[in-house]
Amino acid sequence: MDTLPLSRAFTLIEPGPVTLITTNDGRKDNIMTITWTMVLDFSASFAITTGPWNHSFAALQETRECVIAIPAADLIDKVVGVGTCTGADTDKFEKFGFTPLKAKHVQAPLIKECLANIECRVVDIVDRHSIVVLEGVAAYFDNARAEKRMLHAVGDGTFVVDGEKLDRREMMRTKLPAGI
Amino acid sequence: MDTLPLSRAFTLIEPGPVTLITTNDGRKDNIMTITWTMVLDFSASFAITTGPWNHSFAALQETRECVIAIPAADLIDKVVGVGTCTGADTDKFEKFGFTPLKAKHVQAPLIKECLANIECRVVDIVDRHSIVVLEGVAAYFDNARAEKRMLHAVGDGTFVVDGEKLDRREMMRTKLPAGI
Repeated sequence: MDTLPLSRAFTLIEPGPVTLITTNDGRKDNIMTITWTMVLDFSASFAITTGPWNHSFAALQETRECVIAIPAADLIDKVVGVGTCTGADTDKFEKFGFTPLKAKHVQAPLIKECLANIECRVVDIVDRHSIVVLEGVAAYFDNARAEKRMLHAVGDGTFVVDGEKLDRREMMRTKLPAGI
Repeated sequence: MDTLPLSRAFTLIEPGPVTLITTNDGRKDNIMTITWTMVLDFSASFAITTGPWNHSFAALQETRECVIAIPAADLIDKVVGVGTCTGADTDKFEKFGFTPLKAKHVQAPLIKECLANIECRVVDIVDRHSIVVLEGVAAYFDNARAEKRMLHAVGDGTFVVDGEKLDRREMMRTKLPAGI
């Protein structure tokens, strides 16, 4: 895992990938698959939709910390597996062969096998819409990883893998934040 | 444009595509490019990040209506064009050759050239996070369109087009909402 400047962390979430969100409730680590995420600003603020229906929500509420891990396409079956069982009765790191790595600022672990990880603090929970607002405090990207294509959930049980890349940096130059 | 059941509207936003959001302020139509969007539930509720820095925000606030249009990959240059000029001095429908179609429930127009459109009402604005909460009231999908690949903005001026599709419906069967 290589350090990624926090000013670039939004580029991990803006394309809309499936994410794996880790928590640690003081006793054990857990992972949930979250596909409902959004960028809130260029300074690593993010929103996710979650609530009491996710076992991890209690840890998120209590510890005010998590890690957003971004899996690549080769992890599709683990991503679906994590999303279809519960941390209430399952050690998902063990079951799916994920390796927890110690984070720098939060107790929730990074996932070694993922393409990228963002350590986050919970800054607000908008209960009426089940929106949790996160602030990234450190970001990492595995430049050495061979498979770098992200996964996008459609929501009907199918997934789309990153395809062709189009470069419009010149057209967008005036609209991009400094340093991007 | 074929009608899409509202129960499937979340599958247009969950994969994280770039969207074009139209408004009508009572005098004219406008379009903004929004890549920061999120699904809030399976009943066509969505969040978008926007605020006074977007010319369309005033219309969104006043009329409490908009249309989320989903462009396909062949519209990349128009999408970037819409995102790099302002409705304050530009008729974006005219400039980019988009055709406004009359919506059923809202004054904001559908965009004929897009892959899909969702008519929406604004149900809340969470000012402290610049989050606008939308409720879809009608959805459409152009099944006759040849290019159906969506676009995903990375945020650095590059875009990723939908690639390979992976089917995990069987693994996810127990987790999918009814009718999906």
